Amino acid sequence: MKLSKLAEKTFSTIEKGDADLQIESAAGLDIAERGEVTFLANPKYTPQIRETKASAIFLNENVSLEREDIAVLRAKDAYLAYTRALRLFFPEPEIVFSIHKTAVIDETAKIAEAVEIQANVVIGKNCEIAENVKIFPNVTIYDGVKIGANTTIHSGVSIRENCEIGANCIIHNNSTIGSDGFGYAKDEEKRWLKIPQVGRVVLEDDVEIGANTAIDCASVGETRIKRGAKIDNLVQIGHSCTVEEDTLICSQTGLAGSSVIGKRVILAGQVGIAGHLKVGDDVVITAKSATSHDVENGKIISGVPAFDNRDWLRSIAAFRRLGEMTKTIRELEKRLIELEKSK
Amino acid sequence: MKLSKLAEKTFSTIEKGDADLQIESAAGLDIAERGEVTFLANPKYTPQIRETKASAIFLNENVSLEREDIAVLRAKDAYLAYTRALRLFFPEPEIVFSIHKTAVIDETAKIAEAVEIQANVVIGKNCEIAENVKIFPNVTIYDGVKIGANTTIHSGVSIRENCEIGANCIIHNNSTIGSDGFGYAKDEEKRWLKIPQVGRVVLEDDVEIGANTAIDCASVGETRIKRGAKIDNLVQIGHSCTVEEDTLICSQTGLAGSSVIGKRVILAGQVGIAGHLKVGDDVVITAKSATSHDVENGKIISGVPAFDNRDWLRSIAAFRRLGEMTKTIRELEKRLIELEKSK
Amino acid sequence: MKLSKLAEKTFSTIEKGDADLQIESAAGLDIAERGEVTFLANPKYTPQIRETKASAIFLNENVSLEREDIAVLRAKDAYLAYTRALRLFFPEPEIVFSIHKTAVIDETAKIAEAVEIQANVVIGKNCEIAENVKIFPNVTIYDGVKIGANTTIHSGVSIRENCEIGANCIIHNNSTIGSDGFGYAKDEEKRWLKIPQVGRVVLEDDVEIGANTAIDCASVGETRIKRGAKIDNLVQIGHSCTVEEDTLICSQTGLAGSSVIGKRVILAGQVGIAGHLKVGDDVVITAKSATSHDVENGKIISGVPAFDNRDWLRSIAAFRRLGEMTKTIRELEKRLIELEKSK
Repeated sequence: MKLSKLAEKTFSTIEKGDADLQIESAAGLDIAERGEVTFLANPKYTPQIRETKASAIFLNENVSLEREDIAVLRAKDAYLAYTRALRLFFPEPEIVFSIHKTAVIDETAKIAEAVEIQANVVIGKNCEIAENVKIFPNVTIYDGVKIGANTTIHSGVSIRENCEIGANCIIHNNSTIGSDGFGYAKDEEKRWLKIPQVGRVVLEDDVEIGANTAIDCASVGETRIKRGAKIDNLVQIGHSCTVEEDTLICSQTGLAGSSVIGKRVILAGQVGIAGHLKVGDDVVITAKSATSHDVENGKIISGVPAFDNRDWLRSIAAFRRLGEMTKTIRELEKRLIELEKSK
Repeated sequence: MKLSKLAEKTFSTIEKGDADLQIESAAGLDIAERGEVTFLANPKYTPQIRETKASAIFLNENVSLEREDIAVLRAKDAYLAYTRALRLFFPEPEIVFSIHKTAVIDETAKIAEAVEIQANVVIGKNCEIAENVKIFPNVTIYDGVKIGANTTIHSGVSIRENCEIGANCIIHNNSTIGSDGFGYAKDEEKRWLKIPQVGRVVLEDDVEIGANTAIDCASVGETRIKRGAKIDNLVQIGHSCTVEEDTLICSQTGLAGSSVIGKRVILAGQVGIAGHLKVGDDVVITAKSATSHDVENGKIISGVPAFDNRDWLRSIAAFRRLGEMTKTIRELEKRLIELEKSK
Repeated sequence: MKLSKLAEKTFSTIEKGDADLQIESAAGLDIAERGEVTFLANPKYTPQIRETKASAIFLNENVSLEREDIAVLRAKDAYLAYTRALRLFFPEPEIVFSIHKTAVIDETAKIAEAVEIQANVVIGKNCEIAENVKIFPNVTIYDGVKIGANTTIHSGVSIRENCEIGANCIIHNNSTIGSDGFGYAKDEEKRWLKIPQVGRVVLEDDVEIGANTAIDCASVGETRIKRGAKIDNLVQIGHSCTVEEDTLICSQTGLAGSSVIGKRVILAGQVGIAGHLKVGDDVVITAKSATSHDVENGKIISGVPAFDNRDWLRSIAAFRRLGEMTKTIRELEKRLIELEKSK
């Protein structure tokens, strides 16, 4: 692809370099080769610019380049422009319309003609699979599941009874959609009586679910992951939760039951959200934090339990010196006693 | 079902409403419809009573209702009564006795006649599967495994060599029972030499295991989950652990090796338990806490490392103001110096 | 096996006992039977020596035994000697060369003759499987994967496109190797645009991966787990990470993207490592800790965020009394005011 075409497709402008320069791929600063385009977004990697073999680079405004042998594509957001370049160079592989002979599909299931269903996939009663769906091997789809167009289900995934998966979704390997919520009532003999979990999970369009993640169905009603939300690997979503549009949930985060996570929220890695609470829109909860209270829109919070991030930064700075602080207080007390005596 | 029958079956009493009122299902306050019974247990949801469309409600003693159009079922424990109602309206689906033709079952395995074994299930040598067992697709059962009556194994589960699963158990999707414990000895060249993991896992009766959970076998001997224990999704149980009767382990909690968790313990979400220790009966460890010490019976502990919950609540309240506290101490010191000078 | 032979094979010396004593197996102090060898490494278990039924015991130097009826094998490292004994008594089961008729293997895949491929395994295009590889049921191997000699893949594992697995590796059940990294760029409408994840994962020789673990592929380039590294259950390895030789990563630990973990590092359970950082060689990060900064070689760190372990021990000791400390400071202030007044 010519540099001029690349610029056009990535909404960037050629600031330096030959419009006819041939660019064949895209890669990070450290591994890009001649003929490839790279990017700089995180200033931490600026020193790598001296070493990179890339032939072109996406740069944010206000970032200068001291090398003469690299074409510069100026972008409002270099990371976004690079993402678009990657998407040009690495388009999704085409679907090969086919149903493998070892797939076990119940005769009541409605399968669109243009699908790819690979080996050993099992599809239950009354399922509906839309066009351009691709299902990798050893996937199990229980009865009554609906899967929207252009969705990809990777190997080892289980989708339980009556769940609904939207269009353009991706579910990565070995994840579980719709397993029973963790609900028990204590009976008169202090034993746990299972609360039936007969609800379902709904993933709306454009949702991506990582590998080895578990999303529980509601006891009655539904657990819902809304349009454009992205969920990483090894995440736990408890029963009856709602995750609103465009929210990111990073790896190993867990949501207990019945909580609502607002729009465009970012839950970093290993975060914990207690049950029955509301996290507002645009909230950021930093890694390893947890909250058992509602969180207002737009807050950035940290800690266990989490509070305002700036206050937390002050608290953790003091925490490092807490041993010393104990000593200081003890000393102050001694000096105070001296003064009191001498009064 | 008539209200009178529902009351009888849930051990509750009709305080208000027509004994012949027809109740068709059960659901939470927010989603219950006309003709359904609901419940109030968490006072947080009291405001929803004004809006609910339910026709009847389970209420604890001492809770009053200001609506005239809803029948009241008075119960010692409204949550338990509601659970019983759900179990009446949503009984477990019947097993369809059958072995799918794609199941691969070793000829030495002993399979009861009354079982349901679905597509692509693989069962190894010398396994024993009791009556009323239901195994969903793509499950792998290694050699020498025993599974007790009425147990359900969901799709994608792996059960390793010689494990024993009790009666009335449920294992949710993609969980692993009996994988190797994480054990190595450092050799003379500082490399890790694998310690054979040839023990097994025993789940006693009435145990439920969530989705994507991993329970390791013992190196020699066994890892044992006792009668009535319930384990959530994405939980790690290390080799040679014992989990006693009726204990609850919530999502993403991890137990290192050789620890013993007592009876009726509750480990909340994302808790960590170090190896070789004993957590007493009726202990509660709150979410995201961890302990590397034994815990006495009946304690409620929190924090990393965990200590008495009430002390922890005081400590975390102070922690929020720790930045300020540092400043206060510095100021006190200055004023003390002033006084010392002026002495 | 005679005691003399056992001593020879475990590089230990008979300090007490009959060289011809017959030893048939090895087990821990609490479960060892007559005719078995046991060991003592953790002093916590010293009291069990009085009760053990073992006929022989591995002891470290400087540890004495007060029982006359147990043969003593003196070792530099009793744990390592016991490990070697276990490996003698419990050798790996032999591979049964065979390809199950239900396995679905693409005709372009190159499969060595001496392999064991069990039921319902699916192997994609252009894969290469070396000799003595054992693949358990319901495994899915995507196109272009290479698996080295003597490697074992347990049931339910998924290995994604173009990944490379070394020789003598073990991958436990339901783990995912090579799923997409969690990468998105925010577009002009504040929606998440997926960054293609077209790199791969390389596991070098002698790597062991636990159950239900997820290792993401790089966006471009590779995620690499180097020779001899051992990774436990439910671990998250983000895209483009490198884990160096002989490093141990315990259960439920998570690495965000592009971090490098040095050689012989120990990451204990539930640790978190932020993205784009470097953890030096021989570092130990204790359980439930997290770092968002580089860590120098040889450091032992703890906490969230983590700092020097000894300082952390002091800080957490003070943290327990933080409520009290607040009170002390308030009192000191009052007394200071008294003094100031009386000046």
